[in-house]
Amino acid sequence: MRDDLISLNHFIFQAARNHLEKEGYKEVIVPRLVRASGACENIDTLFEVSVDKNHTWFNSPGYLAQTGQLYLESLVPKIGKVYCSGPSFRAEPKVDNRHLIEFHMFEIELATDFKGLLKEIEKFITAIAAVAVSAADQKLIDLPTANRERLSSLPNQFVKITYDEAIELLKNLGEKIIWGDDISSDREKKLLAYFDQQPFFITHYPDPMWDHGQIIEVEKFFNMLPDPEKPGRVQSSDLILPFGGESVGSAARVHNVEVMVDRLKKSRMFNRLLSKGGSFEDFGWYVKKLKTEGGVPHAGCGFGMARILQWVLGETDIRNAVTFPSTRATII
Amino acid sequence: MRDDLISLNHFIFQAARNHLEKEGYKEVIVPRLVRASGACENIDTLFEVSVDKNHTWFNSPGYLAQTGQLYLESLVPKIGKVYCSGPSFRAEPKVDNRHLIEFHMFEIELATDFKGLLKEIEKFITAIAAVAVSAADQKLIDLPTANRERLSSLPNQFVKITYDEAIELLKNLGEKIIWGDDISSDREKKLLAYFDQQPFFITHYPDPMWDHGQIIEVEKFFNMLPDPEKPGRVQSSDLILPFGGESVGSAARVHNVEVMVDRLKKSRMFNRLLSKGGSFEDFGWYVKKLKTEGGVPHAGCGFGMARILQWVLGETDIRNAVTFPSTRATII
Repeated sequence: MRDDLISLNHFIFQAARNHLEKEGYKEVIVPRLVRASGACENIDTLFEVSVDKNHTWFNSPGYLAQTGQLYLESLVPKIGKVYCSGPSFRAEPKVDNRHLIEFHMFEIELATDFKGLLKEIEKFITAIAAVAVSAADQKLIDLPTANRERLSSLPNQFVKITYDEAIELLKNLGEKIIWGDDISSDREKKLLAYFDQQPFFITHYPDPMWDHGQIIEVEKFFNMLPDPEKPGRVQSSDLILPFGGESVGSAARVHNVEVMVDRLKKSRMFNRLLSKGGSFEDFGWYVKKLKTEGGVPHAGCGFGMARILQWVLGETDIRNAVTFPSTRATII
Repeated sequence: MRDDLISLNHFIFQAARNHLEKEGYKEVIVPRLVRASGACENIDTLFEVSVDKNHTWFNSPGYLAQTGQLYLESLVPKIGKVYCSGPSFRAEPKVDNRHLIEFHMFEIELATDFKGLLKEIEKFITAIAAVAVSAADQKLIDLPTANRERLSSLPNQFVKITYDEAIELLKNLGEKIIWGDDISSDREKKLLAYFDQQPFFITHYPDPMWDHGQIIEVEKFFNMLPDPEKPGRVQSSDLILPFGGESVGSAARVHNVEVMVDRLKKSRMFNRLLSKGGSFEDFGWYVKKLKTEGGVPHAGCGFGMARILQWVLGETDIRNAVTFPSTRATII
């Protein structure tokens, strides 16, 4: 572990919280041992929780949380801007320089539209960069000059390209890719080189509920909001950072309860959940809350802090950006 | 949920962090999916983590963390004052007004002695009370006058009684109790009444490694430091708060690696762990770190935030002090 990792970690987390609190977000403690409503971000990497091998301690399956999103979403109508901070768990079988089974996220939800959301992300990332540069200037952490320059020269607005444009651009850059494919880490690197190693957003991914006439590999969360001006696309984005890669996933959310329930039930995720023993009841509390308290247009995102730290450090291995890295091969 | 619970929660957590950072603590992100080194606080309430019912995904059992203590301890020699903030999990079968299966803790470790540790706890609790009173004065949260007065009248030093004295006092108060028994929640209430509903410490619990000539019910963590002046007692304490009850568990720690390993191997906890499929290797990383980097005298504690919130609110049911309470009967 590099000597200043704890200090860097400390400054970055402090900067993240100070920024969110200055912007009026309230911290919410969300559950991390959950039903599928906190665990279905990626149904293939669910950790199940039990006290014995029969898994009968709970009445329903208990999972480790992948996201606090729905818990935060449920509070936006009453509270407004909310955030949470804590671990996200993925049963990721790969042991390599890009994957951990546990990583820290700050997540936010607020009553805004997609454009407002991207602005929130730019502000958060810019605040982190400023604190890292300042800590380096004060010699509290050790950052190479190249990193400092990279972090000091962030534009006010980051480049934004749609998923469709990213596919076209990758084709022009010589990549063998077709529309509907996932934009892999190697492909992100090609785009980063094209954009001079500056952060950029990929927006408007294919709507998983739309009949695209083909199977699409890239699959997004069921409650992302369809874009009224771009048929078959949702108002979602991934922020791609040098070194970190895909570091912030975000979207405007569906807040109409009938539409939300319909999309949930039709999603591939939900069908896989049923086959694993989950049920619609896993989302019952959220549906009930939306029905009784009503919803408001809102949007949110999750900041993957290990990848953001990679970006600050210029570190290619995520395991070197985390104090106690956990993989399938190594838990302590 | 009371309307101002999110706000209260927000102010208290912010106050806790601000206090710790002002005091020079650095935040550390500790793992929450762990081997037994993060899960053996109470071996009878372990949650196991798996991806299927065979539980073969990890090479060793994976558990949900009960404490970040050893991870923090391992950093004290290099970093000094450290803290973590996050969930503690207990497979608590009771569904009542005192137990949750997931609750938030701030935990600290620092190079100090037992006396210094108790001072740190008093300062933390006093800082929380001051912020709660101030938020109530500004009408940001709604606290009854009685609570405000209780929080405003904290003494600079809290009452401290030893476990032995607590047993004698309880006998004098008419309780049927013998030395070695656990001090239950009902017994805490009798002591709180005796001490005019002011916070108090119970210190110097029986050393689990000492031959007391009898079975002792009250069992503490293996690496608590034996008191050189009180044979058969360890330098540990529980802070008892009105409404919250036992809210802060603390101890000076054994830092000599041979003594620590010897105590670990002889502990009842460790023998129960072996029977559950755990091994000495679960602690291998910590033993190795102590051997290669050396240890320093240090101490630490865990602040149970739900119980501290109960104390602030004057709330008898822990489920009303948490935004998303989880019990065996209800996870969402």
